[in-house]
Formats: sequence, structure tokens, C-alpha cells
Amino acid sequence: MTGERQILVETLTATDFAPFGQVIEKAGAHHYTINKGMTERYHDLATVELGGENPRPLISIFVGQPYRLPLTLTMMERHPLGSQAFCPLGPDPFLVIVAPDEGGEPGRPRAFLTSAGQGVNIGRNVWHGVLTPLDNAAEFLVVDRGGDGRNLEEHDFATPFEVVISP
Amino acid sequence: MTGERQILVETLTATDFAPFGQVIEKAGAHHYTINKGMTERYHDLATVELGGENPRPLISIFVGQPYRLPLTLTMMERHPLGSQAFCPLGPDPFLVIVAPDEGGEPGRPRAFLTSAGQGVNIGRNVWHGVLTPLDNAAEFLVVDRGGDGRNLEEHDFATPFEVVISP
Repeated sequence: MTGERQILVETLTATDFAPFGQVIEKAGAHHYTINKGMTERYHDLATVELGGENPRPLISIFVGQPYRLPLTLTMMERHPLGSQAFCPLGPDPFLVIVAPDEGGEPGRPRAFLTSAGQGVNIGRNVWHGVLTPLDNAAEFLVVDRGGDGRNLEEHDFATPFEVVISP
Repeated sequence: MTGERQILVETLTATDFAPFGQVIEKAGAHHYTINKGMTERYHDLATVELGGENPRPLISIFVGQPYRLPLTLTMMERHPLGSQAFCPLGPDPFLVIVAPDEGGEPGRPRAFLTSAGQGVNIGRNVWHGVLTPLDNAAEFLVVDRGGDGRNLEEHDFATPFEVVISP
């Protein structure tokens, strides 16, 4: 596969991920003490977007089977009516693949590797890959949108991308 | 302390917790496979309640310092405008103290001990104790309500309760 279709994994940071959503993490977050000093609240870490007809937030648990690198990326999807947050319930890193929109299709994808303690909130209508744990199966708490209307759009690449750790 | 003010810790189950909210867990949940067989979605595990003016769901991380049993329960609180979900980001059990309302005050509390993999969503306006990890500090993903209006009511007991593992 030529380098042109290779996507090099990047370390997930709030700044780099900002065009696509938010990193859900304590680092850098506004926080304050409650419960007579016993609890620290890292406050309001994600912009939950609830569009369309009769929207409501859903809390679900996803159990994802692992993928291995290099990963062949054949498809991306997006949710036109709401955001989708993924918070790992264990310490293992996972891969977050996102892409800018280019005329209604995903442009060149970017692949971010999380660190322990990082979740993500993928913005409404942002192209992204499927849930991608690495090495081990993993559980995630997911906050996304329920309600009326079709909230899934998929795009198959004519030529797949290959996600790699090093070129 | 007399037995009348003693609260015996119970094992958390969805049935016993139903008057107060939902247990967020895979066991017994509606689930289905997505992502070409790679992900199992345990769907819509909590009723997120968003009342009052300009409500929106918040995703936050709480870090709670541990308590020890027996625990002296001097105060309970409730949130008139929204529900509050607590999902542990580690395997340790925690204590969930709730009470029915009796004329605008908490009635006799009940104390539930979670198992690994269980979170809770405490219903809008349900009396509850503060976040109560046991033994070790613990992190939780919290989904509650932001927006306008006062969303906290506290009640101090004239005589505290004592939460115990065995009588």
C-alpha cells in the first residue's frame, strides 16, 4: 500500500481532537471540590448534542472486540442527529479514527491513540470509525442520542486506508 | 446506637433499586450486535431526566475519597431538576444510599453495595447520600443535569443513622 493511503497513529490530545469533538479527561479540566472536601468534580467535559425530533440522551454499555494494527479502514460513519461519547471502563488504550467532511464524504482520516483515563465525545455529524479497542476486548460507557429519525450515515471507501503505528 | 437508627447494607439489584432509579449494568439488559459483529450494545440503561429551564446533559468525572463502615449518615441531598448517573471507572464496589421521600424529608434510608460492573442512575428528586467509595479512592463518570435554577436540596438528620455491614 502506498504511503498516500497510510494513516499514521497520533497521540490523542484535546487540541488535536478539537475539530472533531472533545477529549473526556481530568487533565486541564475545570474542577472543584464538593461533598465537604471528599469529592473532586471535573466538570462538564463534553458537549452533548441532541438534535432531530424528540431527542433524549441514552446511557449504554458497549463491549468491543479488539482490532490489531496495521488496520485496514474500509468504512466510516457519522450520526447526523447527535454526538456520541465513549468512556472506557478499563485502563486499556483504544483507537479513535475521525475525518473531516469533504463534500458529504470523509476526507483524509486521522487516527488517535488514547491514554489511560481518556474518553472522547465525537461531535454530531463527524465522520468516525467504529469502536476500536486494541489487543483486548474492552467495555465502554456510551452517551449518545435516542429519538426519532435516521441517525446513521455510512461511507465505504473505494480504496481502503491502512492505519499504522509507524510508516 | 440503637437498632432503629441502624441501616444494614443490602446487595444492589435492579428490582430493589427500582423505586430510586436504575442500575446501569449489562446483566438483564436489552442488547444487540453492531459494527459487523465486533461490538455488543447494551442499550439505553438509564432514564436521564432533564427538567427545569434550559436543561442539558453534563458529562463529568468525579474522584471520590473513600469512606469506611460503619458509616455515620448525617445528611442526604436531592436534585429537583434532574437525574444523576454514577458509573465507576474501576472495579471497586461503592455504596449507594437512598431514601424515599416522606413529606419533603428523607424517610428511612437504604444502603446498597454495588458489584463490579454496576453503576446507578439516581432519579430526579430522589434523596441520596454523597458519593461513597469504600476502602480506596475511586473515579466515576457522572451524567447529570446542567442549566438554570437551583438543583440541590439538602437535609440534615436531627439524629444520624449508622450504616453497617451486619447488625
